[in-house]
Amino acid sequence: MPELRKDPIHGRWVIISTERSRRPSDFAAEERRSIGGFCPLCEGNEDRTPPEIIAFRENGTPPNSPGWTLRVVSNKFPALRIEGELDREGEGIYDKMNGIGAHEVVIETPRHEEILATLPLKDVNNVLLAYRQRIIDLRQDQRLRYVLVFKNHGVAAGASLEHSHSQIIALPIVPKRVTEEIEGAKTYFNYKDRCVFCDIIRQEMQQKRRLITENKSFLSIAPFASRFPFETWILPKTHHPSYEHMELSQYELAAQILSDTLQRMNRVLSDPPYNYVIHTSSFPKVDGDHYHWHFEIMPKLTKVAGFEWGTGFYINPTPPEEAAEYMREAK
Amino acid sequence: MPELRKDPIHGRWVIISTERSRRPSDFAAEERRSIGGFCPLCEGNEDRTPPEIIAFRENGTPPNSPGWTLRVVSNKFPALRIEGELDREGEGIYDKMNGIGAHEVVIETPRHEEILATLPLKDVNNVLLAYRQRIIDLRQDQRLRYVLVFKNHGVAAGASLEHSHSQIIALPIVPKRVTEEIEGAKTYFNYKDRCVFCDIIRQEMQQKRRLITENKSFLSIAPFASRFPFETWILPKTHHPSYEHMELSQYELAAQILSDTLQRMNRVLSDPPYNYVIHTSSFPKVDGDHYHWHFEIMPKLTKVAGFEWGTGFYINPTPPEEAAEYMREAK
Repeated sequence: MPELRKDPIHGRWVIISTERSRRPSDFAAEERRSIGGFCPLCEGNEDRTPPEIIAFRENGTPPNSPGWTLRVVSNKFPALRIEGELDREGEGIYDKMNGIGAHEVVIETPRHEEILATLPLKDVNNVLLAYRQRIIDLRQDQRLRYVLVFKNHGVAAGASLEHSHSQIIALPIVPKRVTEEIEGAKTYFNYKDRCVFCDIIRQEMQQKRRLITENKSFLSIAPFASRFPFETWILPKTHHPSYEHMELSQYELAAQILSDTLQRMNRVLSDPPYNYVIHTSSFPKVDGDHYHWHFEIMPKLTKVAGFEWGTGFYINPTPPEEAAEYMREAK
Repeated sequence: MPELRKDPIHGRWVIISTERSRRPSDFAAEERRSIGGFCPLCEGNEDRTPPEIIAFRENGTPPNSPGWTLRVVSNKFPALRIEGELDREGEGIYDKMNGIGAHEVVIETPRHEEILATLPLKDVNNVLLAYRQRIIDLRQDQRLRYVLVFKNHGVAAGASLEHSHSQIIALPIVPKRVTEEIEGAKTYFNYKDRCVFCDIIRQEMQQKRRLITENKSFLSIAPFASRFPFETWILPKTHHPSYEHMELSQYELAAQILSDTLQRMNRVLSDPPYNYVIHTSSFPKVDGDHYHWHFEIMPKLTKVAGFEWGTGFYINPTPPEEAAEYMREAK
């Protein structure tokens, strides 16, 4: 069983993952391992993954068989496990709990050679709808407090399988970085009676220097205090605290701007490794007036080193205004 | 001039570094670049670095010439600049200031083939004394609030030069991660009237499961909530809020345990890339009763991916008790 442990100084939690326990020699072996070879996520290999939780498939095809355009399955090596009660206990001055939660894989396409940036819009829309459906379902679980949707694209961004996929992790606590964001937004709201994200959107729409692209409902920007070169956020133009509670028609527009943004990134940076995350409201209560869901896309172009680890302070060698200009022109 | 920008939601500052400004094509070029070739840090090439700030050298040898065992110079491509007034200004809802600060390089040895782990203890001691001397000097600057000493060893840990060196960055604000640590320690102290680090030391000395090595004044442990496999902290056994204010004799013992710990790490993990940082008190007032300086050593064995970026929550595949056992046995 994985274990959640809390740092007694920072209050930061970590997952000590026993499912994936590694000896010293395993790390070197991992570096050498090729990402190629047999792919358990390809169509026809459905028996090589845990059974599907949901799938979008042709009428009449049975679960866990070919004929799908998207599958969501449990992670075969989960960082957290869904079974069991949440036990909290101490160990001297330390605090821990057992690793209850969910860890799922969204297989975005049956075809190994496709990447999310070049999938047809209909398929990108299905990916976003699958995220929505899973978050809504996981919100029902009284033991859980947060769901993170994220994607690792490319080995340098931490992907261990080449086949286009994203992941969903549901947690029994709201993670520190999310809490800080929600609390920061709440502090701003209490002071100004306005959502900080709505204020950012207003200023970026007016200044246009950091605006990358937009459609009727969304905009894509290089954030003012970007941590990484070409960091990009996608935000809904109107106030939406949670990703999973938008009108269904909005996901088509979200798919359009996500696809457009990733394509621009590929053109400017030649298919870079990247991570994205969806930041949405915590559970069980929606963070109503003050929080505003969004995508954060982080290409992995530089190495995070001692200074960043020691301070949480980032050195970004590309001003976001310059990054936005490259991205705007890359159509 | 570099610019400091504050994220309006998190309150997290970033350095937008104009000295190092990079276009999209530069990132790909950097990946391909070999770390070999001409070395500006080697003995004999003193004219290829900015002039030395301090050096430990043979009697009678003039500054910026051969005959040294250690030099501290300004970084040729500084993330921050020491000249100028600290100007704070707004840009709509955003906050920024100009990038005042210091960025120095500690050249740990004149010989290119040496690494810190295998330097003679006397030279490691000199490295630690150079850190001390620079922190004490930078503390005099009324514009500054924090100094971080850090080391990037190996390309995967962000080193851009192979020659053994560490870096010092002085900042006009206390960085968020350090503030959280100091505030976390203060909260604990207010509740218990004890230093949280002293409590950690007591428990680890008693349990011994996460103890790696110790000497008269220091211990080296795998922290309970390790973020990374084989993460290691070195702490003084008695309460010392700031690195730079110990008795001189203590640095010899600190050099001994740092060297011992790095050698164990090299043996267990075959000279892994790693980062270390020194966390010490902020300026101008020492964080007296509640803070306790320490080293944090982080081998780079796994890739930080979307989940970690999105949550600040780490998945560690090696329980610290197992890591400590490997490290203990590696003598």
